[in-house]
Order: sequence, then C-alpha cells, then structure tokens
Amino acid sequence: MTQDASAPAAPAADPDCVFCGIVAGTVPADLVHADDTVVAFRDLAPKAPVHVLVVPREHRRDVRELAAVPETLAHLVDVAGQIAADLADGDFRLVFNTGENAGQTVLHVHAHVLAGIAQTESDTGEL
Amino acid sequence: MTQDASAPAAPAADPDCVFCGIVAGTVPADLVHADDTVVAFRDLAPKAPVHVLVVPREHRRDVRELAAVPETLAHLVDVAGQIAADLADGDFRLVFNTGENAGQTVLHVHAHVLAGIAQTESDTGEL
Repeated sequence: MTQDASAPAAPAADPDCVFCGIVAGTVPADLVHADDTVVAFRDLAPKAPVHVLVVPREHRRDVRELAAVPETLAHLVDVAGQIAADLADGDFRLVFNTGENAGQTVLHVHAHVLAGIAQTESDTGEL
Repeated sequence: MTQDASAPAAPAADPDCVFCGIVAGTVPADLVHADDTVVAFRDLAPKAPVHVLVVPREHRRDVRELAAVPETLAHLVDVAGQIAADLADGDFRLVFNTGENAGQTVLHVHAHVLAGIAQTESDTGEL
C-alpha cells in the first residue's frame, strides 16, 4: 500500500523505539506478517491463545496519530482480521491502548489482536 | 464528513438493530456526541468511569467491514480521542470486539472507549 500524496509526511524511525527496531529487523520478534505498511508479531506475554501485535512501519505514537493516515489504519485492521482468520476462528478483540494512563507502554502505535478464546459475557463481558 | 465516491454503497439500516435505533433516535441513549458520520453514547454497564460506545451511523457489522470505509474508521477514532479528552484525561483504551466468539453482542460495529482510570501493568496489563 502506498502512502496517499495528501497524507502527512512519514515520521522518521525513533532509534530508541523497540517496535521501530522490530520493523527494521534489528530487534528479534516472532513475526506472523510483514508487508510494505505493517508488521505483526506475537506478544511476549500473551493474554490469549493468539495474541499478536500489529504495528505500522512508520513511527506514530498512538491510534490518534494513526488516524491521520486512514488508509494505513484501515490496512492494519484488515491485517488484524486476516491474522485472526489464519491463526484462530476469525473472531478477535482489537485493542489500542492510548496513552500511559491507559496502559500504553511502548509509544509506537500497536493493535493488540486477541483471538482463539470464546470471550463470553460471563468472563470479560462486552468490554 | 461526506462519503468518498469510491467507497462501497452505504448499508441500509437494520430494523432489528438496537444501535440503528439509537442512531435514528427511536431508541433512547445517553448521547455524548453526534455528527453526520458517528454517534456516541454511554455504555449501559460501564466498565470504567468513562465508558462510551462510538458507532457509525451506517449499519456495518464489525471493524472489518468498517475498514472498507477508511475515512469513517479514522473519523470514529478521532471522535473517540475527543471524548476521552473532554470527559477524562485524554488517555483511553479503544476496543473493537469482532464476532460472537470475541464477545460482540450487538452486530453493528462499535468502539468501546474506556477512560478515566489509570490502567497499569499491575491490573490489566498492556492488553
């Protein structure tokens, strides 16, 4: 997917960002998908049978900044759905923690894709 | 926000969908935002001090279908961020449950916006 000409300039990689390191291949990760726009890899502390993080190659801080490039945001969601279909039953929970007070510990936007478990009303609710 | 001419045709409202009813104003809800594209209202069973659902006016089943209209998806995220800033400290967790096995109980795509609590590693983790 190419960048829309009207989109904001692509941010430079942050040399201190671990996800920029995974994107660049200098930090190891268990990759499950990579294309020109996004990279996906397994979470080191999985909270579900399938727990994958999907990140844009560009260093953007959070989902608010990602929304400035709608095509990239939409592609990331498409990839999340493909991963849930490939690795589980297709159903998934998609979570973007946004800001430190919401539990975002790496300030490079990442979608959590949680799949492979039946998350019913009796456990986590329609959260 | 107007629909992109290249976007898929807008789906018709589903007469059996409670969120279509809220969008149409025939089902009551505690609205916190409404514009031409999305409507936001408080969750009836809040899981955080601020727990708002943001839905597109168009009846689309889940975030995968919403990704077919990137500008609408991006606008929904923008509105989520505005709500977190207006009603809390600006930080928020954004959750899309996708499919019944992931806890989606209303099949009209909705983003959960959870804000107003410090969700730290010690409670929910970087989920």
